[in-house]
Amino acid sequence: MKQPILVAGVLLSLLVPGMAHAQFAKTEDAIKYRAATFVVMGNHFSRIGAVVKGEKPFDKNEVAANAAVVASLAHLPWQAFGPGTEGGKSLPEIWKEMDKFKAGSEKMQKAVAELNTAAKSGNLETIKIAFGEAGKSCKACHDNYRKK
Amino acid sequence: MKQPILVAGVLLSLLVPGMAHAQFAKTEDAIKYRAATFVVMGNHFSRIGAVVKGEKPFDKNEVAANAAVVASLAHLPWQAFGPGTEGGKSLPEIWKEMDKFKAGSEKMQKAVAELNTAAKSGNLETIKIAFGEAGKSCKACHDNYRKK
Repeated sequence: MKQPILVAGVLLSLLVPGMAHAQFAKTEDAIKYRAATFVVMGNHFSRIGAVVKGEKPFDKNEVAANAAVVASLAHLPWQAFGPGTEGGKSLPEIWKEMDKFKAGSEKMQKAVAELNTAAKSGNLETIKIAFGEAGKSCKACHDNYRKK
Repeated sequence: MKQPILVAGVLLSLLVPGMAHAQFAKTEDAIKYRAATFVVMGNHFSRIGAVVKGEKPFDKNEVAANAAVVASLAHLPWQAFGPGTEGGKSLPEIWKEMDKFKAGSEKMQKAVAELNTAAKSGNLETIKIAFGEAGKSCKACHDNYRKK
């Protein structure tokens, strides 16, 4: 009975090239990779946050550059949450509620894309609103799925 | 005599917003940030490498997507090598030879941009050449400036 399962597995990996086992040789590699994407995104997101909070002066080119970095990374971490890659700062609930986690990740990507659009507009009020929404989408998953 | 130095420092930080002290509250933050950018870049660069070496089949869209990720990150790490941020995997020679290090970083960014252009072309032979050049530019700095 093993053959059909093996074939199905191979087919699945062809259909879903972003799956962990396809891109990451070891679980540690997946954990390191996803953590790295969040570190870079978090850094650039915080730089926009400092402007939104009034801690840093508003330079529209800088905000746009930071939003572009976040947007270009936002689609990356999720491929590194494949089956069997539990660990690091990620709570096991992710793998138990993968559909919910995936929905959260899609919400975040949408919010970050909207922040990127807002940042290009150069309008600080629009940026503040989009930043707030994006921040909420980050927080939702951090609250539920990240070790404290 | 301290005032002119302070003024010069403030002016410099305005002129060079990417300087470490401007973007990173602590040295550890700079070290963590630059390491994270290299982890993500290295991962996507290796995926192209696997295709170039014939270990993975050539999917031009995947190669283009990976090259785009590398290109979008290539300008980021350098801002995190500011004065006083020695540590991590970085050898102290970086700060002693900052001009040489900077020249190497610029060579790498150029090579990665050319790899991105080659990847968009979808021509595997062009990609192989550009990948080789980009790889050399990475290796040059790794050999001289990264802890073994």
